[in-house]
This record gives sequence, C-alpha cells and structure tokens, in this order.
Amino acid sequence: MLINGRETEQLSVLDRGFQYGDGLFETLRICDGKPRHWALHMARLNEGCARLAIAAPVVEVLRTEAERLCSGQVDGVLKITVTRGQTQRGYGYTGALEPTRVLAVFPAPQFPASHATLGVKVRLCQTRLGSNPALAGIKHLNRLEQVLARAEWTDATIAEGLMRDNNNNIVEGTMSNLFCVQAGEDGPVLKTPLLEQCGVKGITRGRIMEAASATGIAVQETPLSVDELYQAQELFLCNTLIGIWPVRQLEEHCFEVGPVTQQLSHALESRHD
Amino acid sequence: MLINGRETEQLSVLDRGFQYGDGLFETLRICDGKPRHWALHMARLNEGCARLAIAAPVVEVLRTEAERLCSGQVDGVLKITVTRGQTQRGYGYTGALEPTRVLAVFPAPQFPASHATLGVKVRLCQTRLGSNPALAGIKHLNRLEQVLARAEWTDATIAEGLMRDNNNNIVEGTMSNLFCVQAGEDGPVLKTPLLEQCGVKGITRGRIMEAASATGIAVQETPLSVDELYQAQELFLCNTLIGIWPVRQLEEHCFEVGPVTQQLSHALESRHD
Repeated sequence: MLINGRETEQLSVLDRGFQYGDGLFETLRICDGKPRHWALHMARLNEGCARLAIAAPVVEVLRTEAERLCSGQVDGVLKITVTRGQTQRGYGYTGALEPTRVLAVFPAPQFPASHATLGVKVRLCQTRLGSNPALAGIKHLNRLEQVLARAEWTDATIAEGLMRDNNNNIVEGTMSNLFCVQAGEDGPVLKTPLLEQCGVKGITRGRIMEAASATGIAVQETPLSVDELYQAQELFLCNTLIGIWPVRQLEEHCFEVGPVTQQLSHALESRHD
Repeated sequence: MLINGRETEQLSVLDRGFQYGDGLFETLRICDGKPRHWALHMARLNEGCARLAIAAPVVEVLRTEAERLCSGQVDGVLKITVTRGQTQRGYGYTGALEPTRVLAVFPAPQFPASHATLGVKVRLCQTRLGSNPALAGIKHLNRLEQVLARAEWTDATIAEGLMRDNNNNIVEGTMSNLFCVQAGEDGPVLKTPLLEQCGVKGITRGRIMEAASATGIAVQETPLSVDELYQAQELFLCNTLIGIWPVRQLEEHCFEVGPVTQQLSHALESRHD
C-alpha cells in the first residue's frame, strides 16, 4: 500500500476522507501485473475530482505508483482513493490543499464461476439512495447507504441487492450497475437506469453501452421501475471485478440467461480498450 | 488525541470510517476542563450507533478518555468519532467488529462576540440535502453535502448557509440547526424543520425545544418553506459551539433580534442540564 508515495497503511484521522468522506475512489482489476482500463478510470477520477473541486493527483504519479504495486501481481484489485487532504476541524477549507492519494492492492474476490455463466440470485433492498445531482455518478466516499443496504441480507445464495431511489425507481446494485433487455420494434433494447440523481457511473457500465451501440443494439439511459425489471427479457449486473453477471432470479421472478447478455459478455471480454 | 485509547493521530486507511464514512461523531464543548452535556451527547451517540448497527463503545471508557483529554482545557472542542471498525475491501462485513473510537481536542472556534448579540448574515445554499430516512437525524460521517455547501461562499461576512431538501424545504445550516418564530393565535410559535428525511438532530436543538416548552412557548417540528422563513418574526441558528445566533439577514431579507430569541438564549445559558 502507498499513501502519498510512502509505504504505509497509516493516515492521520484529520484527513478529510476520514472526517467527512470528502473524497472519491476507483476500483481497478489487475491482470498480468497491469491495472486494466487505466485511461477510463483516470478519466472518471479526474472528472469526479473536478466536480468536487478536489485537486486531482498528477496521473503520471498515479501511474508510476500503480505500476510499482501491481508489478508481479497475476491478478487482484487496485483501489485508488483520493481525498481533499488534511485540514483542521470544520467543513470549510481555504486555499489549495494537498490531496491525499492512497493506492492499495487487494486479492481478487473469489466468486463462483457459475455466477458469470448461469447467473445469480438478487434481492430488492429496502435502503434507498437519496437524490443529489451534485454527487450523482461520482464514486465518492459517502457510502453509508451501500453499507446499510448490503447489511440487509446474510443469505449467501444472494449475490447482490438492488437499490431504489425515493421515487421507487431502480438505480443500481450495492456494488454494481444494472441493465435490462426489453423487446423493441426493431429488435432488443438495452436499458440502464439514468444516473442523474444518484448512483455511480461504472466504467464497465460505460463499456457495455459502447459495446452494445457498436453491435447495433439500441441503448437507453432511462428511469426504470421494478415492474419493468420483472417484465424484462433479460437482466444483468456488471462491474469492473465481476464483468457481467446474468440475473437468473430477482425476488420471486426468474429469468433466462439471454442472447443479448451472452453477446455483451463476449464482447466485453474481447475488447481491449 | 486518543485512538482506541492510544495517544496517536494515525489510523489504518482500512478503517471503514475512511473507506465509506461508515461511522458517526459528536462535537462537544469543553468548559472548565469538562465536556458539557455529556449525557445528551452519549444518548445521541448510542442511538446513532444502534440505528447504524455499529457496536457502541462503552460509555465509561469514553468518559475516562474524555476526562483525560479535557482535563486542564479551559475551553475547547472535544470531537468523538466512532466507526464500525476495520475490515477488508467491500461494503459487507460479518461477525462482531471492534468499533474504532477517536477522541480529539481542538481549540474553541473564534467567532465575533457580536454574532450572538447582534446576529449574523446568512445565505441560501444551492447544494441540496438528499432524503434518506435511514440516515436522517444521525450525525454520521457522510458529509460531502455539507462540504460542498460550505464551499459555495468565501465572503467572510456570511456566517452560515442554509440548506434545502429536494422539495425546496429548509432543513438546517451547514453546521447548525435552525428555528423561526411566527405569530400564533395564543402567542409566538417556535418552528424548526422536521428532520425525518435528512438533517442532523442537534443536541442544542433539543435543548432549545425543551427550554421553549418549559416556558410555555409552543414548539412545532414541521416542514418549512423559504417563504415562511422570509416572513418569520425571528430567525435563529444554534449548535453546541455557537449556542444561539440570531439571524439578522437571510439573503435580502432583514430581521430584528427578537424577544423569543433573546429569552431562549438566556434560558440556554442558565440551564445546567
């Protein structure tokens, strides 16, 4: 682990990441010693920093530190956290703060291989995502809603929980984005929740939207009700670490692993962006 | 500063306070070497821990550590932070975690004495508070909304900014609760925003409501629009560190420092609860 370039796991509790969750993070997959989709993650990190008015770390510095940590790791997870830095007590800050950067490598999570092929069982969470356009889309450090939602179930056969906003629309999973496939007049339509009020705009979500468009599948970002999900032809989850997981059961509703999901899974694996 | 009883300022970045803002805090005023309103703060801390399913630290341990830190401090601020503890990556956690407790003493903030007597100038923030009943009222560590709101202004003559929810109702200040006084049929009515969807239930807010009731002033927790504030007879802010600040100007609307505000200021100072 590297904190501001130093090999340590310890940070002052005066860091605003600890005080207020005043920062953001990226979770990257490591393959053969290299973090994947580096440019996409850096673009999102920079955009998030800009929106929160946090001075973004120099990408070349992050790159050097990431390479140092990932080198020799066959697989794993690289988590990059950036906070506004350290101040005294109080929400306000003045002048240019030195942001804090934390790069840490974790083991790759162990999920059953069947999750990606046969699909997963998913539940609907009671904990809602509050609306805030100023924070929507950003992978920021204010994650209590996800923590509470994930704590709602202990049944190990349930792989993920879906979260709704206060209008009862589906937003995302606790750790994943969500897509559904509906029949359209000119073929299947891929829909994913519009993330203008809450939610995280995942890198894999973006890659899937691009892959779908490239193969001629219509893509829509749109509010999605629970009923629309129940009536969908196909349903799947995604994130950087899991790739695509078809949903075979959501509450009492069952789904087949459909052709669009399979096509996009293959497309995602074969794209080297 | 004490972290889990040890004199240090350093904590692992794997602490869930840093990772997810998975915790909560109390800000106490120190007077003559003692933290004030200890029992009220401990009650709120315990209630917050219960709602977030965080194992609350033993109050006697907190008391001993607080006394150790506050002893000899004529005045100042004691901040107590409690997090769910340390885990590996991921929102989920299993089993009983050891919570992290951080007790830190800071200097008393220096505000002009006139803030409490002549009142302050206040603005309306654009950053909204997202609704989430599961988190409403708790002084939790997810404070990005307050950080963004406080960053909206640099004008030093503005002492505080008021925040609204997504229904355009007023909730609170970035660091304070808010009251207004309206004319009622049987005398003045004290109103303060209902905090069921968002906001922090301040200790001083509770003390003021109690003091008002005790002196026969009707108190209502209710949704409050900006227009209602503009038309109020009196307006004031409160928190543990500032006590009561009358609002003399909110945007372009001016207010007198009224009799109810003055009465409650005196009542607050003389109550030894």
